Amino acid sequence: MEKIQVDNALVKQFRLLLQTENIAELGLQLSQMYAQDIAMLINRLPIDESREILGLLNKDKVIKVLVNMDEEDRAQFLSAYSPFEIADKFIEHMDSDDAAYLLNNLPNKIKEDVIGQLQDVEYASSLLSLTNYEENTAGSLMALELVKVRINQTVAECIEEIRTQDENVDNIYVVYVVDDFGRLMGIVTLKNLLLAKYDLKVSEVYNTEVIAVAASADVEEVANLTKKYDLVVLPVVDVLGRLAGRITVDDVVDVIKEEADEDYQLMSGITSDVDPTDSVFDLAKARLPWLIIGLLGGIASSRFLGMYESEIQIHPEMAFFIPLIAAMGGNVGVQSSAIVVQGLANDTLGTKNIGQKILKELRLGLFNGLICALLILAYNLIFNDSLELALTVAIALITVIIFASVFGTFIPMFLNRVNIDPAIATGPFITTSNDLLGIVIYFSIGRMLYQTF
Amino acid sequence: MEKIQVDNALVKQFRLLLQTENIAELGLQLSQMYAQDIAMLINRLPIDESREILGLLNKDKVIKVLVNMDEEDRAQFLSAYSPFEIADKFIEHMDSDDAAYLLNNLPNKIKEDVIGQLQDVEYASSLLSLTNYEENTAGSLMALELVKVRINQTVAECIEEIRTQDENVDNIYVVYVVDDFGRLMGIVTLKNLLLAKYDLKVSEVYNTEVIAVAASADVEEVANLTKKYDLVVLPVVDVLGRLAGRITVDDVVDVIKEEADEDYQLMSGITSDVDPTDSVFDLAKARLPWLIIGLLGGIASSRFLGMYESEIQIHPEMAFFIPLIAAMGGNVGVQSSAIVVQGLANDTLGTKNIGQKILKELRLGLFNGLICALLILAYNLIFNDSLELALTVAIALITVIIFASVFGTFIPMFLNRVNIDPAIATGPFITTSNDLLGIVIYFSIGRMLYQTF
Repeated sequence: MEKIQVDNALVKQFRLLLQTENIAELGLQLSQMYAQDIAMLINRLPIDESREILGLLNKDKVIKVLVNMDEEDRAQFLSAYSPFEIADKFIEHMDSDDAAYLLNNLPNKIKEDVIGQLQDVEYASSLLSLTNYEENTAGSLMALELVKVRINQTVAECIEEIRTQDENVDNIYVVYVVDDFGRLMGIVTLKNLLLAKYDLKVSEVYNTEVIAVAASADVEEVANLTKKYDLVVLPVVDVLGRLAGRITVDDVVDVIKEEADEDYQLMSGITSDVDPTDSVFDLAKARLPWLIIGLLGGIASSRFLGMYESEIQIHPEMAFFIPLIAAMGGNVGVQSSAIVVQGLANDTLGTKNIGQKILKELRLGLFNGLICALLILAYNLIFNDSLELALTVAIALITVIIFASVFGTFIPMFLNRVNIDPAIATGPFITTSNDLLGIVIYFSIGRMLYQTF
Repeated sequence: MEKIQVDNALVKQFRLLLQTENIAELGLQLSQMYAQDIAMLINRLPIDESREILGLLNKDKVIKVLVNMDEEDRAQFLSAYSPFEIADKFIEHMDSDDAAYLLNNLPNKIKEDVIGQLQDVEYASSLLSLTNYEENTAGSLMALELVKVRINQTVAECIEEIRTQDENVDNIYVVYVVDDFGRLMGIVTLKNLLLAKYDLKVSEVYNTEVIAVAASADVEEVANLTKKYDLVVLPVVDVLGRLAGRITVDDVVDVIKEEADEDYQLMSGITSDVDPTDSVFDLAKARLPWLIIGLLGGIASSRFLGMYESEIQIHPEMAFFIPLIAAMGGNVGVQSSAIVVQGLANDTLGTKNIGQKILKELRLGLFNGLICALLILAYNLIFNDSLELALTVAIALITVIIFASVFGTFIPMFLNRVNIDPAIATGPFITTSNDLLGIVIYFSIGRMLYQTF
């Protein structure tokens, strides 16, 4: 099996093979490709050609490809099957976490019908409970397939258990040790078992050092635990401490990537997770709220500037630097807030309390503000005649930068204190408020200075 | 062992125990804590108290804590030791990837001295080659510790190999199968070995499906392979295909998180990876370049507005909406570019080529622009007398939003085409250029409309 670059050339080649109905060659090529690569190929093909490709794969591979396909393509693909067929052909043969994920992406009615059509009633009931976990909880991410042994079994019995339970579990990693009530007591690694004498008891070779997570815990906690303690698999326990399932690191990696993508989008003024392939309407829905905030900020600015109409008429040159002041306030505010938001998320703010943090940003603002103010002062003294203007712009700029630094630091910290996600404080929100702040400072200082000279 | 919330209360408690020299209680508490938690505790203590804590730990735990400490704290801590002590007390007992990481964070001179002081010459030579890999390559991330067997050995010999090689490898995951030249041929899982007959040959039970990466590959490729193929460990091969080391998923998770953090900072106008705990000067160095870009953009805006001095004098109300127009252009530009930058990074842009993408953004811009323009038109018709102004602002706004959408999409795609990191196109760069673009459009339209009416 080869990992293959899924590029335009490959897509072209496959479409040609499909058109010429060269089934032998198609089958050969597909058999040498990883399911992930086939999914990427399928994402780039029209739906009818995708169906043909999937029809050429064996059952195991179809399932793997399905899990890796684009959501929309998968929905379209599955829509051609009855609930019974979906249950019988696909869900029945999937790992429980993949099955739950796929089911949760189906309309509620179809999801229930599919579960109702499953042959294995026990599996159906497990899936039903899995799909009932709230989104973004550890429970919603876990798989039920795992290998467990009771603490009073022997190593030999334990190996026999692995042999029996084996077919359901792709990667074992560790064997969980439970008591008679199913409560998680510890783990045995395969290495332990491989090297231990057969007649030893599990209780003599097992390790009590095991980090577990509650089924109701947020996926963010799952990600933090996995990252911090370098885990490859994390057991999930119910409220009674009983082993309920396990989360493997590959799913955690996906969570970490998704959360980072969402933060990035939030920072750029996009509220919900969207892909470039989403519809224009979905994209607009995610972006418009922030644009409206910007619009309101702009209206507020215009009302404030309205109070300075006569100044602008007498000194139109003041208006020339409105964009500069507004932009700098916005930029500095975003920089400060981004660092704080990230520090809060990664828990790297250290010992410094809010007061010390703000003091540091104040010093940083003073430093950056001073440099920028001197640059703009020099520019205006050289290229503009008005001393009042030069002083107004320079003094306003340093003031705006300092204020924006402090506000950018304070607002996310404050939001965090009152349990609001500080990430909403970055991006358009901070830009808009600092735009407004900048203009207020600029014109207030300008009026004072022009009156003084 | 318990995972513990490292909060202010815990820090206070430990400082009290240190002051009262309650060594027994300190030792007890520390023995029940994970190294990662001790590292978090130490990050919050003054350096002399950190040293006391580390002095109370056994050798294995000190090493784990060291790897998890803040870079600065670790440097300060190690500065009290001679190169010989660093080699003898710490490096000698570490996994090669951790040792290389720690060594690469030391000044070059000290790094070489430390390696020169290592007792085990073979290990020293391996470490030297590990530390010589370029930053951000697979080689710089890999560990040399792994379990490998030759393809012509038996299962029994293989288990014996694990027993022998075992002490060097924390988590085995899989056993690598190599030929007589050390070239990677495939893998055997521990499960395979556990369930196989002892007299079988490795060649009869091994799996040739193994994804490997070249030592010179970028860490981004390592992250992408791990994420795509759901790997927990990735073998690294040299140019001759020989097994050189392996990268475990915990290190890949760190890479993914760091890259996401860097993208987030770049988006907010911060060029190099900084922490809130970095010095004011380091922070300023990372932020000033983008502020200077903003400054230059602001100066360009002021020069452009200078050409409209008489218009502003006659119609000062035009100046009122400068912040609105500039902000909206910036916001829309950031939204569009963020989606493209993310799509490029995640390879989710699908089949759509540049032309189709821009067309879609054009439609989205038209939609969002229309809504925003209608809102501002309604506002101005109700609250302002001037029809010219109301029309100018509305028409300029929709034009600016459409232009900013298209530019925001086009610029990162263009940069990507010419092999420049498109991420630099987001944040201050796009905001500044769209500010300027917005003002040019606004005043050009304004002049036309005012002359027409």
